[in-house]
Amino acid sequence: MTEKNKKAVVLLSGGLDSATTLAVARSKGFQCYGLTFRYGQRHRLEIEAAKRVSDFLGVIEHRIIDIDLAQFGGSALTDPSIEVPKDRVDLGNSGQIPPSYVPARNTIFLSCALAWAEVLEAFDIFIGVNATDYSGYPDCRAEFIVAFEKTANLATAAAIEGRGKFKIHTPIIKMSKSEIILTGTKLGVDYSMTHSCYDPDDEGRSCGRCDSCRLRLKGFAEAGLKDPIEYRMSNKE
Amino acid sequence: MTEKNKKAVVLLSGGLDSATTLAVARSKGFQCYGLTFRYGQRHRLEIEAAKRVSDFLGVIEHRIIDIDLAQFGGSALTDPSIEVPKDRVDLGNSGQIPPSYVPARNTIFLSCALAWAEVLEAFDIFIGVNATDYSGYPDCRAEFIVAFEKTANLATAAAIEGRGKFKIHTPIIKMSKSEIILTGTKLGVDYSMTHSCYDPDDEGRSCGRCDSCRLRLKGFAEAGLKDPIEYRMSNKE
Repeated sequence: MTEKNKKAVVLLSGGLDSATTLAVARSKGFQCYGLTFRYGQRHRLEIEAAKRVSDFLGVIEHRIIDIDLAQFGGSALTDPSIEVPKDRVDLGNSGQIPPSYVPARNTIFLSCALAWAEVLEAFDIFIGVNATDYSGYPDCRAEFIVAFEKTANLATAAAIEGRGKFKIHTPIIKMSKSEIILTGTKLGVDYSMTHSCYDPDDEGRSCGRCDSCRLRLKGFAEAGLKDPIEYRMSNKE
Repeated sequence: MTEKNKKAVVLLSGGLDSATTLAVARSKGFQCYGLTFRYGQRHRLEIEAAKRVSDFLGVIEHRIIDIDLAQFGGSALTDPSIEVPKDRVDLGNSGQIPPSYVPARNTIFLSCALAWAEVLEAFDIFIGVNATDYSGYPDCRAEFIVAFEKTANLATAAAIEGRGKFKIHTPIIKMSKSEIILTGTKLGVDYSMTHSCYDPDDEGRSCGRCDSCRLRLKGFAEAGLKDPIEYRMSNKE
């Protein structure tokens, strides 16, 4: 199960899922290169969280790339005129993709990860997508990942010239949120360093009511653990 | 053959191929949205060229996106320490991908085009890739485009929710450089507005010796036309 000294690029959002994904990659022996995007998101706190997580879990290098997806808009996360939904009942099961979906975000993030990976000659890319306790985003599903991996192996000189074959790893894609939290806890992830809320207040406290907070709180509750971060309201348990 | 009032996103580099691609899209009746990247390329003149071309041929809007691919490096176009090859004999036929290849560039550009297209509800994306008179870049080939198109239709809410199916148009992919030039000339493209050189001098004059200049000059010669741009040396004919 170990991949000693193999390089991997790991996408890091600062959230719980990508922190766990990094811990899994590290536990397999990968030399990890963390990649985070300053993409015009409302919740810029996540970039600070990504820094803390990568320092704590250990990466060879952590890079933060600027790409202003707010220029395109179309998401509650990048356009302040679109409201972040609160207290939704059907998290990921309504068949509706919520307004927190950011158009083509994971395609853009994976493409940039691919660029860096090719330069590093790292053929392993990790992304913390999850298709179980999730918000219904299309670019978190296995079908998308498989299609992107195929594209990556046609797009790049390193693959075409036979230096390697890119693999997109999605270690938590089938886990429930509580399984993710239990996996990360076992691997030493300190979830107090992570940030999930789509709509934090000025002091950085989470709302507890957006999809991301609700999935997180549900996950901690099901795992029988207390979420160590601060919420505006008293912690929902 | 007309697609009246349908919106399309057209990738514009400022070069000859993308100018011709825009002219083809316009001739089919598409309402075009031009997208250009300031990605840390040496030849920043191409952004000015993209502006001229989009003004001249007519777009609804022209957007320039910043994404610093020089942070990743790995290309003679983004890393000044890697030399731009000159006077290469086997243009695109050597089986070797030249150092002007930019890792994952077209994957990143198409991903961003997809993001904007989704927000615009434009299901048509045009890219001026060419796999005939070209430098051997893997992300200019039809296999890559087909794989990306499939990925796009799995990645996006608009596709998953059935609002449309994304199509990546590559109208010049099979044309020779001279066919591209003759097609554009017929459609009114003014090639004096375009910029192709990978290594222009401070006055913006093209070198005439890099792959891009040589393919361009060969194309004009084969088309029986004179290239209207200025070269550092006397025009090769």
